[in-house]
Amino acid sequence: MESPSLVIAIDAMGGDHAPDSVIAGLKSAERKHSDVRFLIFGDEAKVRPYLEKYGLDANRYEFVHTPDYVPSDEKPSAAVRTGRKSSLWLAIEAVKKGNAAAVASSGNTGALMAFSKLILGTMPGIHRPAIVTILPTRKSECVVLDLGANAECTARNLVEFAIMGEAYCRAVLKREQPSLGLLNIGSEDIKGRDEIREAAQILRDSPLAGQFKGFVESDDIAKGSVDVFVTDGFTGNIALKAIEGTARLMVNLLKDVAARSFISKLGFLLALPALKRLKKKMDPGRYNGAMLVGLKGISIKSHGGADAFGFANAVNVAIDTVRDDLVGNIAKQLETVKFLEEDIEK
Amino acid sequence: MESPSLVIAIDAMGGDHAPDSVIAGLKSAERKHSDVRFLIFGDEAKVRPYLEKYGLDANRYEFVHTPDYVPSDEKPSAAVRTGRKSSLWLAIEAVKKGNAAAVASSGNTGALMAFSKLILGTMPGIHRPAIVTILPTRKSECVVLDLGANAECTARNLVEFAIMGEAYCRAVLKREQPSLGLLNIGSEDIKGRDEIREAAQILRDSPLAGQFKGFVESDDIAKGSVDVFVTDGFTGNIALKAIEGTARLMVNLLKDVAARSFISKLGFLLALPALKRLKKKMDPGRYNGAMLVGLKGISIKSHGGADAFGFANAVNVAIDTVRDDLVGNIAKQLETVKFLEEDIEK
Repeated sequence: MESPSLVIAIDAMGGDHAPDSVIAGLKSAERKHSDVRFLIFGDEAKVRPYLEKYGLDANRYEFVHTPDYVPSDEKPSAAVRTGRKSSLWLAIEAVKKGNAAAVASSGNTGALMAFSKLILGTMPGIHRPAIVTILPTRKSECVVLDLGANAECTARNLVEFAIMGEAYCRAVLKREQPSLGLLNIGSEDIKGRDEIREAAQILRDSPLAGQFKGFVESDDIAKGSVDVFVTDGFTGNIALKAIEGTARLMVNLLKDVAARSFISKLGFLLALPALKRLKKKMDPGRYNGAMLVGLKGISIKSHGGADAFGFANAVNVAIDTVRDDLVGNIAKQLETVKFLEEDIEK
Repeated sequence: MESPSLVIAIDAMGGDHAPDSVIAGLKSAERKHSDVRFLIFGDEAKVRPYLEKYGLDANRYEFVHTPDYVPSDEKPSAAVRTGRKSSLWLAIEAVKKGNAAAVASSGNTGALMAFSKLILGTMPGIHRPAIVTILPTRKSECVVLDLGANAECTARNLVEFAIMGEAYCRAVLKREQPSLGLLNIGSEDIKGRDEIREAAQILRDSPLAGQFKGFVESDDIAKGSVDVFVTDGFTGNIALKAIEGTARLMVNLLKDVAARSFISKLGFLLALPALKRLKKKMDPGRYNGAMLVGLKGISIKSHGGADAFGFANAVNVAIDTVRDDLVGNIAKQLETVKFLEEDIEK
C-alpha cells in the first residue's frame, strides 16, 4: 500500500447492515477521493467476500483481521471490559497511534463514545464528548448536539455542549457569533426539566450571554430559529429521528400521490429536477456522519441503520473533518470561551 | 339561547393568537356543526370585538364575562392558587357542572392539566392524565401519548399511559388488540433511561404482554411500526414538534422548488390535487386538538400556536369526543386491563 497520504480507520463490523453497507460505502468513497486509503478492521471471513464483491482497489486499503467485535446490544461498560481486541477498539486505537487520521463506525454508539473517550481523551474543560451534526433548515443549515452520546445530562454537560456547538458552528458553518438555543418544550422559563433551566441560568451569566436566545422548541430546528440547538443525547436523538422519519414519510407520500393519476404523474415528471433537489436537501443519508466533538482525535459516528450511501457520507465527513483540522479549530475556539474551566473536577 | 343540545365550553383567552384565532375558529366550527353551541369565557373588552368581527350567530353562543385569565408563562402551582376565577377554570368547571359536554383551550398546558385534574378528577387507577393524539403514518394513523402534560414520568406513569393509549386506540381507531411500543433511543434493551426500561419490564409481565412490542424509535412513528407510541410528555412534545416542523419545512421547500422554473411550476400545477391531498394528510392543524385522557370529563388541549383552522379542528375533536362517548368508552376499556389497580396509592 503506497502514496495517498490520508488514512481513515474503518470498523467494518458495526451497524445493522455491516459489513455489506460499510464496504459498499467505501467503494463509493474510494471513487470520490483518489488520495485516501482505508485501514479496515473486521472479521476476515465476513468482510473478505464484500471486499471482492464490490471490487475495492487493493492499493487503497489495508485489511486487519479482527475476529472480535462489539455487538450492537452490548452495554458500554461491558464493552470496555471485554472489547479491547474488537474491530471498534482497534480502529480507534489506530487514530491514537497515528496510523489513521480519523475513524468511522456505524456500530454501538455507547461503546464508540466510551472507547473514543478512553483512547483519544477529551479536550481540556470537556467532561463528556457529544455527537454533533448539521441539519437542514428553511433558511440554510443548523448545528444540533448531543444526538445520542449522553442519554442523561447535568446542567454542566449541557453548557459544555453549548460551548462546543458554538465552536463547531464557527468552524464548520463559518458563522461569526452564532446564536444558541436550549431545546425545551416551551419558550417560557417555567417549562421543562430542572437541568435545562439551570443550564439556561449559567449561559445567561456567561460570556455567551449575548448569543444565547433562551429556550427553543423542536419545530424551531426546521425554522432555523438559532444556529446551534443544544440538548441531551436522549432528546436530540428523538428529535433527529422524528425529523428523519417525517422527511422519508413525505417523500414516500409524494411518490404515492404521484402514482394516483396520469395527470399527477405527468406533473411530477415535469417537476422531477426540482423534486430531486428537495430530496437531496432532506435525505437523512446526506447528513449521515456525525462528529464526536470534544475529543482529542477524530471519531465519526455513522447511523446504525446507514446504507452504503449513508456510510460513504460518513467517510466524507471524516475526510472533511481531517482536512479542515476541526479538532485543532474547535480547540482554538474553545480557548475563547473557557468560562467553565475554573470549576473543573475530573 | 335555545335548541341545539351539544354545548362546548371555550376558553377564549388561551393561546398565542387568542382571542382572535379562537373566535375565528368558532365561526368555522359554527358553520360545520349546526347543532352545537358555545359557552365562551373571556374578557368582554377583548373578546367582544372579535365576536362582532367574525359575526358569530348570537343564537349559537353564550358569553360569560371573565376578566381573569391564566398567562401562558404562569406556573401550574401558582395558577391553581390564584386562577380560580380565570376563563380556563370556569370553562372546565362548566363541564363538571353539566353546563357543557366538553372544554377546549389553547392556553397554558400545565394549568389546563392541573385544573382539569382538580375539577374533573381522574379515572379509577389513573394518577396522571396524558395528552393523546393521532398522527399520520405511512400506512394510516397511530396514537401517541403523552404529548406534554407530564414532563417527567415514573415507570408507573408510563405504564398507565400504555393502558390508556391502548384503550384510546381501540375506541378511536377501532383496532382490536393494538400493538404498543415504548419510545426510546434504540431498540436494544440496554438503551435509554431507567424508567423506560422498568416500564418495559412491567408491560412484559402484564396482560398487555402480547401486544407490547418493546422499544421503538421516533422514526417508527412515520413508519407506523406500532399502533400506540408511549412516552413521557417532554419526549412526546419534542417528537411531535419535530414532526410538525419537518412537515411544514417540506411543504415550504416544495413551494420554493416549484417556483424555480416554468417547467417545475407547470409540473406542480398538474400535480396540485395530489399535493393538496398530501398537504391535508400532513397538516399539523388537521391534527390539532388533543384529548386529556384519563379524566372523568372531556378536556381538549389545542396547540398554543393554533390558528383559526387549528382551533376549529380542536373544537371538532371536542365534539367527536362527546359524540363517541370516549370517556365512557375508555373507562370501559380500562376495566379490561386493570392489572395495575391492586397497588394504587393516591
